[in-house]
Order: sequence, then C-alpha cells, then structure tokens
Amino acid sequence: MKQSLIIIKVGGKIVEESVSLASFLKDFAHTEGYKVLVHGGGRSATKLSEKLGIESKMVDGRRITDKQTLDVVTMVYGGLVNKNIVAGLQALGVNALGLTGADMNIIESVKRPIKEVDYGYVGDVKHVNAQIVASLIQQGIVPIVAPLTHDGAGSMLNTNADTIASELAKSLSTYFDITLVYCFEKNGVLSDEMDDNSVIPLITPSLFNKYVHQGIIKGGMIPKLENAFQAIQAGVSKVVITNATAIGKDAGTVVLTD
Amino acid sequence: MKQSLIIIKVGGKIVEESVSLASFLKDFAHTEGYKVLVHGGGRSATKLSEKLGIESKMVDGRRITDKQTLDVVTMVYGGLVNKNIVAGLQALGVNALGLTGADMNIIESVKRPIKEVDYGYVGDVKHVNAQIVASLIQQGIVPIVAPLTHDGAGSMLNTNADTIASELAKSLSTYFDITLVYCFEKNGVLSDEMDDNSVIPLITPSLFNKYVHQGIIKGGMIPKLENAFQAIQAGVSKVVITNATAIGKDAGTVVLTD
Repeated sequence: MKQSLIIIKVGGKIVEESVSLASFLKDFAHTEGYKVLVHGGGRSATKLSEKLGIESKMVDGRRITDKQTLDVVTMVYGGLVNKNIVAGLQALGVNALGLTGADMNIIESVKRPIKEVDYGYVGDVKHVNAQIVASLIQQGIVPIVAPLTHDGAGSMLNTNADTIASELAKSLSTYFDITLVYCFEKNGVLSDEMDDNSVIPLITPSLFNKYVHQGIIKGGMIPKLENAFQAIQAGVSKVVITNATAIGKDAGTVVLTD
Repeated sequence: MKQSLIIIKVGGKIVEESVSLASFLKDFAHTEGYKVLVHGGGRSATKLSEKLGIESKMVDGRRITDKQTLDVVTMVYGGLVNKNIVAGLQALGVNALGLTGADMNIIESVKRPIKEVDYGYVGDVKHVNAQIVASLIQQGIVPIVAPLTHDGAGSMLNTNADTIASELAKSLSTYFDITLVYCFEKNGVLSDEMDDNSVIPLITPSLFNKYVHQGIIKGGMIPKLENAFQAIQAGVSKVVITNATAIGKDAGTVVLTD
C-alpha cells in the first residue's frame, strides 16, 4: 500500500501577510505525514513591480511576464515568499526545503507558444522529475515549491501555482496516495456565493454536470473543478477545495470520482 | 581515503553580469568531481535598494541590514542571483540545487550581538549541518549556496559569503578532502598591487609572517589570509585565491600549512 502524501496549494494572500502566514504555517506544521506546499505570491510581485515602476500587465487574470517581470517574480516567489515560509517552518520543526522547478530540475517547462497572446516568460509544464521529489519526501524533507520553473536552456519561467500543484500531484501519484488541497479564502465550493456556509461537501463528475446544468457551479470554479477531475483521472486519490484556515480539518469540498 | 570536494566562492560582480556569469558557469560546469558554489550578489542588492529608495548603509565595507534591506537581500541573493545560476547550470547539465542556510536547516546563525555597531539582521554562523549537505553532494547534487542563513526562530539573516564558504569547508572536511577556492578579480595575492602578474604562488604561515613584516602583504588581504589559515587548521586541505576566469586551472595563490 502506498503511503499518504498531502499536497497543499496556498494562494498569495495568505502567505504574504505575516499574521495569516504565521497561523497557516502553524496549521501546516501540525498536518501529519508526508507533505508538500506549493505557494503563490502574486500580490507581493505586483507591489514590487509598482514600486519599481514596472507595469503589471494582465490578460484574463493571467500575468504577462516580460523580462523585468520575470526578474521580479524570481525575486519575490523564489526569494522573499519562499524563504520566509522555509524559515518560518524550520522554526516550527518542519524540515522545509525551498524549491523552484530549476532546482534539481524537478519541473521543466516550455515557454508558452505565442498564439493570440504573448504571455512572455511563462512556462507550461513539460516534465516533472517525480522520482527525485519522492526521494526527498521519503527522507523526511518537506518541499516548499515556488511557482517558477525553467526551460532547460538557462531561463527561469513564471508558472501558475495551481498547475504546479496538480502536475506534482499527478506525477507523485506513482509513489504516494495523494490528497491535493487547494486553499483559498472561501470555505469550499459554495452553492450560494453569498452564503459562506453553503459549502457543497462532495462533487463527483456526475454531480458536477448536474450543478453546472442548474447554474449552481459557474465561472472560474468550472475550470478549477475540471482540473481537479483531470488530476483524479491521472491517479490523484482526492482533491479538496477549502479555506486556508481549515487544512487538516474535515471541511471544504471534496472532489472524487463517481 | 576521502573523496575530493571543491568549494568555490565567487563574488557578486562575476555572477551579476550575464556575460561574465555565462563564462564562469561554463568553467564551473567543466570542473571535475564533487563541487559546491557559494555566491555573493551585493551589487544587485545595492541596485535594487537604490531603485526602491532604501539607503544602503555600510560600516567598514559591511552592510547594515535593516528589515527592508533583509527583504531585498532575501529577494536578490535567494531569488534572482541564486535561481539564475541554478537555471544556467541545469542548462549545462549540472544538477544544481539552490540553497540558503534555512533550507533543510543547513546553516543556522545567531543574529550578531550589538556592540559598537548594530548590524541588524546579520547572522554569525552557529552550526553547519554538514551531514545533510554531504549526503546531497554524494547523491550527485551540486549545492548553490546564497549568502543567507536563518536564526532558527523564523527569520532569515544576511551572512557574509566568504564566511559561509569557509564554514561549509571546515565542517565538510569530516567527509571530504577539501579545496576551498576564493575567486576574485585579481589573479591571486599580488606582491605588487600594480602588477597583475606578480602573483605569489604559495603562502604558508611562515611565509605570511615574512611578507607581512616586509610590507608585501597588507590591508584587506591580511584578514582574508588569516581566515584561510584558520580553515586549514580546521581540516581544509588547501585554499586557493585566484581569478574567477582561472578556476580549474593551476593558477593563483595556494595557501597551505607550513
């Protein structure tokens, strides 16, 4: 039987403010068993860009990464946010190791091909070196993964943290029984956006189709859930969408196969 | 018999300019056997501080690290400089892993006590976890170490790269036969500062005393060489002070015991 591994993706807002970060790290430290943390950091990157007079260009909520912006995200995600998490977890007795995709070549990407939009230095994941990540985890190391990969030709690439989490989860499912947790600011997938307590406890593909048809699930939640189903089809046991304050608790929306 | 390990410290200027960085990384990639790179990054940190309107305060050539400056060096050393080196080396087939002292708790420091000067968030190395670093090296991983450590209580600390290199060298000498190489812009310790070809090929403690007495070795080179002797006394086999363009070549000043 495979051992359990929990992969937690946490968004920028939580890890970029010292109060919510401290509280989150405490919960993360208390989570039992093998674990991996994937973090964002977009707000700090935007803030630093602003201070440096670099315009943050977004198309459909996605950052356009020119060379200056690549330097900013490499500094903020790979340096500031990542190392503050690592130091914070070490203080809590967690043997954290900060990583980008370039480190030990754990995640190699291709620079996104230019179609309608040139996203610049943005990476689409090509290959996860799951064996080396699995070996670190089995040695008791807790990987803290920044949303950065590399192209194998010397350049870092900005890469979506949700994608890194799901790609890691899929490829590590050969080695572990994986629970993939997406933390955000809501309590889960809500049936009523205005009611924080209207969490849908379970979503399967057939329930998903029903809820979409009924207009209960809509907007940005649709691709998020489609990604979750894809992860499950690729070998991930369970996906949980929950509030960052609820990790390790039996809360949020569980996404399972039918 | 212990296997050889070369620990190379390279200053900011070389790794912060893309042309000299590319050339240095090629030489580093061609260096045979086990290796570790420790890098600086001060010029980029100063440049970023200036752009952000943060005053870089120096006392006797040492940076005063207030909280804002700590964030800057964490971004620049741990993010920008470190990850560009890692991505560059991966492209050359070197299995590089970027590390700060916080990662896997490899180097724990104490915040420098306030005496005449309050250096701020500056770390004096307390403990090197040599075993975990040795284990990585033996697995074929090449550690790329940024001049940052942590205090074990959640804060990163700015730490002198020369010190990190010599502390790593000393503690790893239990596991390896160590050559510690300090790269800088001159060809070695010069007997005539105006003549780049006047490299003193060998310095031992007795030769050092003679040269200091004769006024041939002076200024900042005295503490640098005293550190080298200290490293050798602590188990390092050889210290080399050389030009960054000459690594792997039989050049520069070799510091040995009598």
